[in-house]
Amino acid sequence: LKTEIKASCIQFCPEFGDTVGSINRIFELTTKAESDLVVFPELITSGYEFKDREECFSLSIDVSNSSEFANLIEIAVKTHTYLVLGFPERAGDQVFNSSALISPSGETNIYRKIQLFDREKEIFDPGDEAPKVIKTEIGNIGMMICFDWIFPEICRSLALDGAHIICHPSNLVLSYCQRAMFARSVENGVFTITCNRYGVERRTDRQLQFTGRSQILSPKGKLLAQASENEDSIIFANIRPADADDKKLTDLNQFFEDRRPEFYQRLQTK
Amino acid sequence: LKTEIKASCIQFCPEFGDTVGSINRIFELTTKAESDLVVFPELITSGYEFKDREECFSLSIDVSNSSEFANLIEIAVKTHTYLVLGFPERAGDQVFNSSALISPSGETNIYRKIQLFDREKEIFDPGDEAPKVIKTEIGNIGMMICFDWIFPEICRSLALDGAHIICHPSNLVLSYCQRAMFARSVENGVFTITCNRYGVERRTDRQLQFTGRSQILSPKGKLLAQASENEDSIIFANIRPADADDKKLTDLNQFFEDRRPEFYQRLQTK
Repeated sequence: LKTEIKASCIQFCPEFGDTVGSINRIFELTTKAESDLVVFPELITSGYEFKDREECFSLSIDVSNSSEFANLIEIAVKTHTYLVLGFPERAGDQVFNSSALISPSGETNIYRKIQLFDREKEIFDPGDEAPKVIKTEIGNIGMMICFDWIFPEICRSLALDGAHIICHPSNLVLSYCQRAMFARSVENGVFTITCNRYGVERRTDRQLQFTGRSQILSPKGKLLAQASENEDSIIFANIRPADADDKKLTDLNQFFEDRRPEFYQRLQTK
Repeated sequence: LKTEIKASCIQFCPEFGDTVGSINRIFELTTKAESDLVVFPELITSGYEFKDREECFSLSIDVSNSSEFANLIEIAVKTHTYLVLGFPERAGDQVFNSSALISPSGETNIYRKIQLFDREKEIFDPGDEAPKVIKTEIGNIGMMICFDWIFPEICRSLALDGAHIICHPSNLVLSYCQRAMFARSVENGVFTITCNRYGVERRTDRQLQFTGRSQILSPKGKLLAQASENEDSIIFANIRPADADDKKLTDLNQFFEDRRPEFYQRLQTK
């Protein structure tokens, strides 16, 4: 495990439907960030507001068999960067709102969003397994996507599985999340990197305004970096991933040890 | 269920060991508050920093057989108020850091803190069951005590069981909680009333500074009322308990319905 890493969060506004353009920008910005880890927003290769499932399917990317995903792997390899980004993932006749972690050696892990927001339910298939922690030399990485933030169970599960850094590609339209992530960091003692997009999309009967203000929080809830609400930004922090192993609050409290799971059974049902 | 109620949070600083004095103040302040519900801080009948378990035992109150608890019931009855307050609870040879909900009809429900903070572990027995929701005419009430806030499982369980209002007697010395309760309110869509004490206690080798800033938050995370950090305060809000039944975020999201408990199994172990 590296002692210290440079973790960046790259907020930008994709042009809807321009997958090639977005991938080019991902390459350009990742190169510029010169970081061990970069996190991009949700659905950054495509834009957010699909007219229907068919349109989403046409802009989706097959992880194992597409030039687009091969290009993304190439970016991680060429820039020696762990790359996290959201994209519409095609898998047979299914399409997921997914996040990839691509390592500099080209290894890929995928998380498929399990809790879909609003009309995403009409576009995507819901994810089919719980998010997993990926062990890397820059720390144990957990991914969650946008709306997952409101379910404390997700970040908690990742942290219990040893995550140091929660990478959180987002396309936020509500105003709660950035504030609430303070709790996610401190209740779990983890770094959280919420990478949001900004800008406006109007492709259906409604206009969506994304809220920017991407942020990096420490395990103690310190705001290490924050972007503005309406512009391209590369924000970063030099962090020590192992800081997230320390769950000590007082001489007598390790707050993960203090949990009493025998009383948490209610969480297993709706 | 009443449509609207007046909920108050009464922040004060007890004199250590003066149980009679504290109960008198509880009577005086509850009368003054003229509310349907009042919440007092944790361990408000005794003060916080016991020298040892023996001292705590000597200041503890037996719910079923003591003049002190009979007096507290009398206050609820006389003032027609639902009273929530923290106290050291004696039960045989055990002593718990407990919170009572006493109804105007004299009915009593107790929650015994299950997650103890710091030296409380040397003083108290840990609670022996999960907190429960109590159905009343002023809403479904859940109680959690101070440090319980850092375990999202507690507030979540209460909300899933239908709590409208989370009453949260506290003696906070750290600075995280008031900020983090924003997440507790919005992730669960519940009212939260964090009643903290203020002031300094120095009874052992350390000095404790309590942080005040008691607060009432709406299910949407709106700060309805907040006390200062260093003075007696009665803060209140006129709230509609049934607002907490509404878990709708968008036309397609009821965020409790959206939970995927099949993926939350990790929470059942440490």
